[in-house]
Amino acid sequence: MRAAIFNGPRDISVVERPDPRIENRTDAIVRVTLACVCGSDLWYWRGASPHDRSGIGHEAVGVVEAVGSGVEAVREGDLVVVPFAYSDGTCPNCRNGVQTACMHGGFFGGGDGLGGQAELLRVPHANGTLVTVPAGTYDDSTLRSLLTLSDVMGTGHHALVLAYVRPGDTIAVVGDGAVGLSAVLAAKRLGAARIIALSRNPARQALAREFGATDIVEERGDASVERVLELTDGVGVDAAAECVGTNESMATAVGITRAGGMTGAVGVPHGVELPIGALFSRKKGIKAGGAPVRAYLPELLEDVLAGRINPGRVFDFETDLDHIVDAYEAMDERRAIKSLVRLSTAA
Amino acid sequence: MRAAIFNGPRDISVVERPDPRIENRTDAIVRVTLACVCGSDLWYWRGASPHDRSGIGHEAVGVVEAVGSGVEAVREGDLVVVPFAYSDGTCPNCRNGVQTACMHGGFFGGGDGLGGQAELLRVPHANGTLVTVPAGTYDDSTLRSLLTLSDVMGTGHHALVLAYVRPGDTIAVVGDGAVGLSAVLAAKRLGAARIIALSRNPARQALAREFGATDIVEERGDASVERVLELTDGVGVDAAAECVGTNESMATAVGITRAGGMTGAVGVPHGVELPIGALFSRKKGIKAGGAPVRAYLPELLEDVLAGRINPGRVFDFETDLDHIVDAYEAMDERRAIKSLVRLSTAA
Repeated sequence: MRAAIFNGPRDISVVERPDPRIENRTDAIVRVTLACVCGSDLWYWRGASPHDRSGIGHEAVGVVEAVGSGVEAVREGDLVVVPFAYSDGTCPNCRNGVQTACMHGGFFGGGDGLGGQAELLRVPHANGTLVTVPAGTYDDSTLRSLLTLSDVMGTGHHALVLAYVRPGDTIAVVGDGAVGLSAVLAAKRLGAARIIALSRNPARQALAREFGATDIVEERGDASVERVLELTDGVGVDAAAECVGTNESMATAVGITRAGGMTGAVGVPHGVELPIGALFSRKKGIKAGGAPVRAYLPELLEDVLAGRINPGRVFDFETDLDHIVDAYEAMDERRAIKSLVRLSTAA
Repeated sequence: MRAAIFNGPRDISVVERPDPRIENRTDAIVRVTLACVCGSDLWYWRGASPHDRSGIGHEAVGVVEAVGSGVEAVREGDLVVVPFAYSDGTCPNCRNGVQTACMHGGFFGGGDGLGGQAELLRVPHANGTLVTVPAGTYDDSTLRSLLTLSDVMGTGHHALVLAYVRPGDTIAVVGDGAVGLSAVLAAKRLGAARIIALSRNPARQALAREFGATDIVEERGDASVERVLELTDGVGVDAAAECVGTNESMATAVGITRAGGMTGAVGVPHGVELPIGALFSRKKGIKAGGAPVRAYLPELLEDVLAGRINPGRVFDFETDLDHIVDAYEAMDERRAIKSLVRLSTAA
């Protein structure tokens, strides 16, 4: 098969690799139809986080090509969504809805045929991990939306779950990448009455509005906190979704929440310091962590198929596997919100 | 009136002071029946936190002696519980149940006749602050329990609210002071299935058991984390109540919660550093802050009067105002869990 291999910062090549095989009886092999590049892949691309010289990518929609003898939940030929983490679905953490802390799980994007930016992907614990899309014919727009359920749509949704959001709440979303925009859509879906999106990019502002944002704040840092407080009569928002992971974005998120409010943080933290004194004196909370998108897949899948949400709108750049470097560059240079990679052999 | 005045670390005197008067039309004057010493008063006593040379104390049950022209919620002669913070009850934060962030509120324990360890106490915003106990005759045990609703019982309850506890949860309580023991009682009241109390003091262990603790952990630090994980099949607890405020107690609380779990932190933080990396990688949250005990007073009052909870059991030392230094010393030396101060002029 052909697969994208991370060689080092700004150095990814697409090369021939041995096809992944069933290694354990609960493995499945998925032929990837659509893959994409994640904002978190850019940390590796930019050299800000280490990555092995191996396969990369952790988001995919594809068709099951083979299953091990212990796989019952999916069959050859099934169209499936692959969450960015694999999980057995049976350990105490999975049963508690935190599949990203599965006691026997792990994450795609590494070696051993586990890179999602490739023609074939080995999926461990296929019974707990994969979600089958009901048989049918799906248009391209639907498939693109299904692909976001691998990560960004579930992650945006998770930011609101972490913040214990309730219908009628006023929400702010810090970060206008694909995850932040997905969080806007998730907030709308969960019944938020008011959704304040922080963005200074006209295209992203437009998509935020389309997804349900009622207010746009262009300021940054302390000025953004002042502006959000102005918009909320000095009170602050009920909950903030932190979708970046920098110290500044975290300070903004905590700063704009009201007394008693929560920040749900899904941006992988880089250099973040949490202000316990401010949290205590202003009666605030923060909950953080990589999204158990597997837990949310059934309900989000249903909404995508029913046309109630269209998160695939975040893809505004498209290429094929051989040109995946273009996909990284478009996102690195912020020309693209999110880059789709269409596999040549598929569909 | 006679009042306890903080002169400096380990130096509190009981002296004659002018009676507090109605200063604003929403003030009330309360003649204190029962007061007490709080663990947070010890921070001042020990010189670990600064305090003005003024009245001290913030917990009281008493009888309304006078009200301003704008006070309608209480009348002269009413038996009332005084929460440790005053609040107008009408601002957006009060209406949201976070009275400790009242936009026009403040805290007892300071100057201007606002010290609770005194014969008379001026209560600002009496309409929003005071809670009347229905007319009747109450035995001493009931009055002692009502006094805990000023602070420790409401604060212990708050730790669980901050942690979004649900019936059936497994809870751990870090801290065996009056607040920690109250958190055990609150956890039982809220339907926790299992309550693990961290304590190495036999008397406090016994009271924790009486309040509903199902397990006692005597270890400290990393060993306590290991022990709690052992008790929970390696999973950790659904929620931890952090009732101390040190860096070690916070690390323990975060360490023993399961993936996806919350820590509710009510110990005033002293030198705490929050591990955002550990929170993110283990999918955990923390919410902190001084308890809006006013919000919880009605429901807790009802349970005290019905005899369903008896939080006054935390008082294991008693003296009068003239001997209040003994009350501080008994707690400072950990001879007492919590010291009651019975006002000579009352009841």
